[in-house]
Amino acid sequence: MRRFVILGHEAHTVPDFSLDDLPGTSGRIDVLTRCIASAFLVSHGIRKDVELYLVHSGPGRPPRTIRMVGFELRHLNPDERSTAALILKALESESLVETRSTPGIYVSGSGFEQVLQSVQGPFVLLKDDGADIRNVALPEDASFVLSDHLDFNDEEMSALLTLDPLIISVGPRTLHTSQCITLVHNELDRREKDL
Amino acid sequence: MRRFVILGHEAHTVPDFSLDDLPGTSGRIDVLTRCIASAFLVSHGIRKDVELYLVHSGPGRPPRTIRMVGFELRHLNPDERSTAALILKALESESLVETRSTPGIYVSGSGFEQVLQSVQGPFVLLKDDGADIRNVALPEDASFVLSDHLDFNDEEMSALLTLDPLIISVGPRTLHTSQCITLVHNELDRREKDL
Repeated sequence: MRRFVILGHEAHTVPDFSLDDLPGTSGRIDVLTRCIASAFLVSHGIRKDVELYLVHSGPGRPPRTIRMVGFELRHLNPDERSTAALILKALESESLVETRSTPGIYVSGSGFEQVLQSVQGPFVLLKDDGADIRNVALPEDASFVLSDHLDFNDEEMSALLTLDPLIISVGPRTLHTSQCITLVHNELDRREKDL
Repeated sequence: MRRFVILGHEAHTVPDFSLDDLPGTSGRIDVLTRCIASAFLVSHGIRKDVELYLVHSGPGRPPRTIRMVGFELRHLNPDERSTAALILKALESESLVETRSTPGIYVSGSGFEQVLQSVQGPFVLLKDDGADIRNVALPEDASFVLSDHLDFNDEEMSALLTLDPLIISVGPRTLHTSQCITLVHNELDRREKDL
């Protein structure tokens, strides 16, 4: 299982945004929709062995966490708008206890630290000054932790560092979160093939 | 300069599609918007050294080619809708001769073979059974040629093969075109850093 945890610092926690203007009205849920596509989609198919946590910490009733499970997902389209519509639907739930929204998509009142505590380690943190992903031994069943378009703040980074994560970089340029996910998958695909 | 040529087999050639339903109304221009984002965007910036050709071969007045130039682009946002709006604007031009639409975006009546003839080689073709990108010498100033969600047909492939392209693969899984672009950039970023 490949697990990704993405922190959406300003991602809205109620379904109050417009699909016609995601960047302007949703706290950058468009960034999260691109992470969903990178995490799950390959050509003409879905990666079954992926679990994705989207931690929404923005306006509404924070925090809300959307959990997506590859082997349960149906009909995930690659375009941002239809994916954002699935998030909108999930955020209609007000339950703090995890509730199923649509097939493969669950929502709860968990926040970032709760998610980190509940998912299984070992943890891998992506940072510009980390060790090159091509040169490190990646733990099996790792949880990869990434931020959205904003950096982790000091408090979030402290919570992360107490988990003793492996700190890696995907390359010499600082990229979008969704691009980093594509690069992590590619490295893992190559290693699985070589097993 | 990094150059990408993407063939949009069914991508509309007139501005007749809806931004509210790109997958359903545009001939999958949503696929092309994701290629644009992968080709040009890094975290908080634009790759200046990229030129992208989007060859639209779908309904309307085919063919139309949109050429985007990194060092001239202004305000390219990462979301699909605003990028599709730039394409919509470019397709308003009926000129066969290349015309500027918005900063860094040009449109003409060129088709796939014309674009291949006009861009400088050497050419690199991405295919599942190609040589591993990590193990090949990549020519300088190469033009990377990719298809959208549909494979090249026999005629297109014949035109490509007469150019004697280097044929490479980015990894063991068949991925979306935009994901392939991210992986090509990463490999080139790493090699430039090591120069």
